[in-house]
Amino acid sequence: MALAERLFADLAAPYADEVGITRDAYGPGEQRAHERFIEAAKSLGLELHQDAAGNHFARLPGSDPTLPAWLIGSHLDSVPQGGNYDGAAGVIAGLTVVSRLKATGITPRRDMIVAAFRAEESTWFPASYIGSRAALGRLDTTTLSLPRADTGRSLAEHLRDCGGDPEAVAAGDAWLDLDRLHAMLELHIEQGPTLEHAGIPIGIVTGIAGSFRYRQARCLGEWGHSGAVARTHRHDALMAFCALATALEHEWSELEAEGFSATVTVGQIATPPDQHAFSKIPGEIGFCLDVRSECPQTLERLEHRLFASARHLEAERGVRFDFGVRTGSTPAPMSPALTERCQILAEAIDLAHMTLPSGAGHDAATFANAGVPAQMLFVRNQNGSHNPNEAMRLEDFAEGVRLLVALVQE
Amino acid sequence: MALAERLFADLAAPYADEVGITRDAYGPGEQRAHERFIEAAKSLGLELHQDAAGNHFARLPGSDPTLPAWLIGSHLDSVPQGGNYDGAAGVIAGLTVVSRLKATGITPRRDMIVAAFRAEESTWFPASYIGSRAALGRLDTTTLSLPRADTGRSLAEHLRDCGGDPEAVAAGDAWLDLDRLHAMLELHIEQGPTLEHAGIPIGIVTGIAGSFRYRQARCLGEWGHSGAVARTHRHDALMAFCALATALEHEWSELEAEGFSATVTVGQIATPPDQHAFSKIPGEIGFCLDVRSECPQTLERLEHRLFASARHLEAERGVRFDFGVRTGSTPAPMSPALTERCQILAEAIDLAHMTLPSGAGHDAATFANAGVPAQMLFVRNQNGSHNPNEAMRLEDFAEGVRLLVALVQE
Repeated sequence: MALAERLFADLAAPYADEVGITRDAYGPGEQRAHERFIEAAKSLGLELHQDAAGNHFARLPGSDPTLPAWLIGSHLDSVPQGGNYDGAAGVIAGLTVVSRLKATGITPRRDMIVAAFRAEESTWFPASYIGSRAALGRLDTTTLSLPRADTGRSLAEHLRDCGGDPEAVAAGDAWLDLDRLHAMLELHIEQGPTLEHAGIPIGIVTGIAGSFRYRQARCLGEWGHSGAVARTHRHDALMAFCALATALEHEWSELEAEGFSATVTVGQIATPPDQHAFSKIPGEIGFCLDVRSECPQTLERLEHRLFASARHLEAERGVRFDFGVRTGSTPAPMSPALTERCQILAEAIDLAHMTLPSGAGHDAATFANAGVPAQMLFVRNQNGSHNPNEAMRLEDFAEGVRLLVALVQE
Repeated sequence: MALAERLFADLAAPYADEVGITRDAYGPGEQRAHERFIEAAKSLGLELHQDAAGNHFARLPGSDPTLPAWLIGSHLDSVPQGGNYDGAAGVIAGLTVVSRLKATGITPRRDMIVAAFRAEESTWFPASYIGSRAALGRLDTTTLSLPRADTGRSLAEHLRDCGGDPEAVAAGDAWLDLDRLHAMLELHIEQGPTLEHAGIPIGIVTGIAGSFRYRQARCLGEWGHSGAVARTHRHDALMAFCALATALEHEWSELEAEGFSATVTVGQIATPPDQHAFSKIPGEIGFCLDVRSECPQTLERLEHRLFASARHLEAERGVRFDFGVRTGSTPAPMSPALTERCQILAEAIDLAHMTLPSGAGHDAATFANAGVPAQMLFVRNQNGSHNPNEAMRLEDFAEGVRLLVALVQE
């Protein structure tokens, strides 16, 4: 694990005096991480490739060049003030697997391609899996014109800064060849506390949740004096939003009681700072909504409840909900054959494991949805992810690598 | 009404190209309005006085200098992007009453003092009735050190800019003499829609609501990945806040069903912009709370419910509510004798009227709480107040002035 330990330390080094880790997608933070990836791949003697979207691939040739390749990897960007492991662990796992094979003198039958994808986190640009979708030549041109949340500059501009070629991405150019991929493997820290609570280091993922999302929703009511308008005359946008959120939470709770799983999150909310005041009834409130589930019917039921409650509240309170643009993704099942093989191998090598779904989205979903068999492994973490306290034990990570090494030796 | 019409137009003139009216307390907006007041009082031949807090008083001497005076007035500041009438209507009503008396050759028995108070709106400095409290020598020194919400500079500094004397205010210096006041009269636009809905131009106010307020409340939970943390492991600060707001609204609704009146308003809310993200469970949310009622027991019951619900949610969800500093005011009843006299006079001069409480606070509360008989009149308005569309018909205002003229002639 000396290689992995060194790579993790190297990635974290510039942030020692900061709160958390900020590897901005298609910005200096992510770019630096890709440079470290290139150096590490070179020192392992791997072939390096960069595609039009700035993704990087490092290849170890297999003994039989006619066979489709294993792809192992993840992304190198992070959320603002996130942790060091979300994404990077999967890339470093790929390098570690290759290094382990080389160190033990094993040449795998298939090519091993370690992938470092760009821009998986949707906090920078309002879209999911940008890097991996572009890697398959499947990024639509409208995504290229999306502005980055902090800079306001387009994805195309940021991509060009990082040595990419937006026109080639738009044309569907891809270095990866779908038909030459055997499977996509992604190790990732679990982003929830399930493994930690269960005391199990490794999770074998059964599927990745899909979602529906409203990033720019609003409730519009009527501004008024906080003390002077009686309840029946109020059109309070904030109170109406609270009732909507409570109704959605109630539906979620009922779904769980019936055995379905989902997550419902309003990550951001604000009354408009240029108009709100302590003594004004809010006439407007902005919010976003992120609903996820492995199960398409559960997503449908929650979205139905969202609209039904909104209509009811509009009639009851004289407010109006404007949900804005909807985005979403389809639930992505992992390959049942690979999932089963992982379970069998984990038993064989005496590795504590459990199966679980992934509530969060991952690059592996892009491959699963493109028809490439995909399999994710989760490593338990102690403090959640997308926050500065995100954690992972290196010995747990090593268990994940051990399972991957077993898997690619077939 | 030519004088009143001219004064209203003059006050609104600088804001013709802006959204609403912004007369900032102890800033250029309010200062300009006081200058217009001084000019108008001089042109009416009234004696002018400025006190240490920068309040202005214009006196018309009565025929019997041994009698305590009538005080008629209100404030000249507005909320940001508010309307032209909230406050100013009461000051202009005072000038119009005096002008009417002079024009008809009537010398009242008592001195008539028209008052233009400072800083009544609590959006600028987090305190109520600053000008009128200082006018009675009752402003505590801690209030003088409060920062203005937008500039961050203290009330004392702003006061000095406007020609006031913070040391004298702190020492309790006052130009007004409590023992020499017969009664305080304040005309104000109604800030709710009750009169408008009832089709009645003038309301005779029975009492002013008291309040409890938390301006810097927070709910603290735990940041997490929006897709990866199951419901039972979440400590979502935003959802906990929504449940609290919904519980408080429910209690309010029950109180109203039992015949009690109150208002409950969360005017501002935000997840922290430097930490929140679309895909993060909110670990923190900031909000304010303004609860008002004429009835002390109703305030008590709502505050009890607030704390009981907060404790329940803390235990249920693993979050923590930090309400911060509490401020509040005591409900202020109007003088029953003056209220009754207004009703009798309104009948006598054939003026359509109704009695109603004031949900909002007003300078008259300062006088009522200091033992000075106080009486407010409301003029109906069409679009609420504390917003750019605030309205008032000049003919309704004239009806209020007609009642005041009748009242001060005794």
